[in-house]
Amino acid sequence: MPLLTNTRTLRIEWADCDPAGIVFYPRYFEKFDTSTTMLFEKALGMTKFQFLKHYKFAGYPMVDTRARFLKPTRFGDPVEIATTISFGSSSFKVEHRLSKAGELAVEGFETRVWVTADPDDPARIRARPVPREVVEKFQVD
Amino acid sequence: MPLLTNTRTLRIEWADCDPAGIVFYPRYFEKFDTSTTMLFEKALGMTKFQFLKHYKFAGYPMVDTRARFLKPTRFGDPVEIATTISFGSSSFKVEHRLSKAGELAVEGFETRVWVTADPDDPARIRARPVPREVVEKFQVD
Amino acid sequence: MPLLTNTRTLRIEWADCDPAGIVFYPRYFEKFDTSTTMLFEKALGMTKFQFLKHYKFAGYPMVDTRARFLKPTRFGDPVEIATTISFGSSSFKVEHRLSKAGELAVEGFETRVWVTADPDDPARIRARPVPREVVEKFQVD
Amino acid sequence: MPLLTNTRTLRIEWADCDPAGIVFYPRYFEKFDTSTTMLFEKALGMTKFQFLKHYKFAGYPMVDTRARFLKPTRFGDPVEIATTISFGSSSFKVEHRLSKAGELAVEGFETRVWVTADPDDPARIRARPVPREVVEKFQVD
Repeated sequence: MPLLTNTRTLRIEWADCDPAGIVFYPRYFEKFDTSTTMLFEKALGMTKFQFLKHYKFAGYPMVDTRARFLKPTRFGDPVEIATTISFGSSSFKVEHRLSKAGELAVEGFETRVWVTADPDDPARIRARPVPREVVEKFQVD
Repeated sequence: MPLLTNTRTLRIEWADCDPAGIVFYPRYFEKFDTSTTMLFEKALGMTKFQFLKHYKFAGYPMVDTRARFLKPTRFGDPVEIATTISFGSSSFKVEHRLSKAGELAVEGFETRVWVTADPDDPARIRARPVPREVVEKFQVD
Repeated sequence: MPLLTNTRTLRIEWADCDPAGIVFYPRYFEKFDTSTTMLFEKALGMTKFQFLKHYKFAGYPMVDTRARFLKPTRFGDPVEIATTISFGSSSFKVEHRLSKAGELAVEGFETRVWVTADPDDPARIRARPVPREVVEKFQVD
Repeated sequence: MPLLTNTRTLRIEWADCDPAGIVFYPRYFEKFDTSTTMLFEKALGMTKFQFLKHYKFAGYPMVDTRARFLKPTRFGDPVEIATTISFGSSSFKVEHRLSKAGELAVEGFETRVWVTADPDDPARIRARPVPREVVEKFQVD
């Protein structure tokens, strides 16, 4: 069954760029993190601030991330990020395709886990399967 | 004669926030810088990338900036930034009012100068009056 | 009675700079925030992570901050930040002087408050006088 | 022949951390970028600002980067980053191992290219083999 995707547009700003005049690549990871949040918000129908409370979990920390840089982008460039997700048994993967003028510029890959606070020690977290009711909300009829 | 203003909406993101769960205040200065750019873009009818070339200048570096923080904002909050400008003989001032749910949350104040590369030494910059043709483009009939 | 000061050296990095090749000014505020932390750590003899717990407070949010930019700095520049503090009845002020090659490049000014969680509603914070035992630790014989 | 490595120590700061209280992972990429710079500076005996001019090149943009996150770090944690490099015919790879209290916390992997401005169009860059004289400076007797 197909899963929900999300596409958003944004603009590269001066604040994102380095002395070479192009995006300083760590900023792409910030934008991808926001895109992952937006996909969850779209599926769950609430903001991250709300869904962290609603599902009593502690976030979805990154365990592995990668990006490939195909074309540079610079301040003033409008770009689009299309985000897809797939769920495994104990982790989930997110893919981002950032394009500029219709051409793929950066690809981002994330592997994340769903964590909850340890009931015996709230300062500790532990990975848990993504709840079935959460996964189901990503399913598109 | 009244001068052009610009208002934009944006959302506070997880990436903007610190361990207290609210915006890490240097991020407001990043957003204000983008708002200043957007006001110039609106007045001049081109992107910053384009207007730096078109007017052969080297930017409008900050000489003094200040912000007052009245209410915290946190990830997921939609906010609005309204930006106004006034021109002096050798510098200009920009003011930003960031509000959340209609209430003022942060005020930002900037004093900037218009600089051009020194013709005798392009690695050096010097402050110049903002060109009259630029100032005129901010005037609203 | 004189109060404790702190001086630290650091280097401006590529990551701090914008397409003009100089520090993107919001980064100075990040560095000043770290300098304020370091001054508190020096006075209290523990890390911020530790002193937030030890003194059961919720941080010292900024209420007003300002910076003046006198000279640009760029990647590779070693700089020094000297930090001083003064306590008022319900807030405190911090001043930072960032210098490069012995010349003042940026001055930063902060007004902060000491906040604790509201006992009736831990999600709310309220400003409190800085505890006397904390202020005393800044006093130099 | 073994190649030069570089190890540096730094501290995780409040400014690096997100509402979960741990490092916001894009900040690791910023730190790794600085570590790559420091390795080049150690090999070439000059700052990045200087070596960009000296070798008349336009930087070493990232083409692919990845990081694995094994243990979280939080503000106040001292960490160490050990950086190694290997050169291919048209690109080079850098590896970073960030450890905390002697245990590996984050691994970073970079593939970069050496680029120069196109002589026919200085606004364009093109990838070139890393000059032999540069590679030789990484060789340890």
